[in-house]
Amino acid sequence: MRPAALDYSVDNCTIGRAMEILGEKWTIVVMREIFQGIRRFDDMRVRTDIPRQVLANRLGMLVETGLLRKVPYREPGSRERHEYRPTQKGLDVYPVLVAVAAWGDRYLAGPEGPSQIFVHRECQAEVHAELHCAAGHQIKENREVAGELGPGAKLRA
Amino acid sequence: MRPAALDYSVDNCTIGRAMEILGEKWTIVVMREIFQGIRRFDDMRVRTDIPRQVLANRLGMLVETGLLRKVPYREPGSRERHEYRPTQKGLDVYPVLVAVAAWGDRYLAGPEGPSQIFVHRECQAEVHAELHCAAGHQIKENREVAGELGPGAKLRA
Repeated sequence: MRPAALDYSVDNCTIGRAMEILGEKWTIVVMREIFQGIRRFDDMRVRTDIPRQVLANRLGMLVETGLLRKVPYREPGSRERHEYRPTQKGLDVYPVLVAVAAWGDRYLAGPEGPSQIFVHRECQAEVHAELHCAAGHQIKENREVAGELGPGAKLRA
Repeated sequence: MRPAALDYSVDNCTIGRAMEILGEKWTIVVMREIFQGIRRFDDMRVRTDIPRQVLANRLGMLVETGLLRKVPYREPGSRERHEYRPTQKGLDVYPVLVAVAAWGDRYLAGPEGPSQIFVHRECQAEVHAELHCAAGHQIKENREVAGELGPGAKLRA
């Protein structure tokens, strides 16, 4: 019962590559702020308590990797500043965030429930991440999912 | 246009709490290994190159937080060892992993495609994470999702 995956390389694994960005400490929390409409450095600081230099680094990395873009704004009497808006690549992190929230809501919420939810703008109904297969089945039990080799699978050197 | 969320605390945010576990470096990669059937310490080492002590710490944390459980096994002629199997709490990380993989496949895959996919055991069709709202709409554009205050939202002190 030697697992087949053992012979294969993870060098080109897209989960590993994605986690180099999404797994950096605070990335998902910053994206949460963005999706809650918090797009300015000082506002994020107020909410999250992320140290100033760490937040600056993280935002810089997210601009560099193309998840956020900087847009200038100027309040009356102040110098020009930037706010951060999601790109398509950043918006596409939404399902990750919704899936993380669902897991957190299930296992880590307080008795009062989650402090935030996600809704469909059009109808205001709550949004959830669901697993569906290409044959049209909704996956109700995660045991029904199996990891398998993909087209890019390569034997280990 | 001051964002409403700015007045609210993130102290009980379930995304923040979830990321304290899922956001620890290597957690998602270890769960990927588990879901690919790689459940033994030495096998994970071979595949992932995670330093020995780091992997031991991460597996320990995942047992402590209830995502994995240790199950003893003994190969002929060897001492008893343990392998790691997902609990229900661990299995419930599946949608996060599938959503991370989708994002990685879209933006970070090589030309040959992803090295692994997820399939529905019953029909072998590929599994994807989709956003759906409680009113029955599938969300095709992530712009249609909005973050909102949940039942546990608390004003900041």
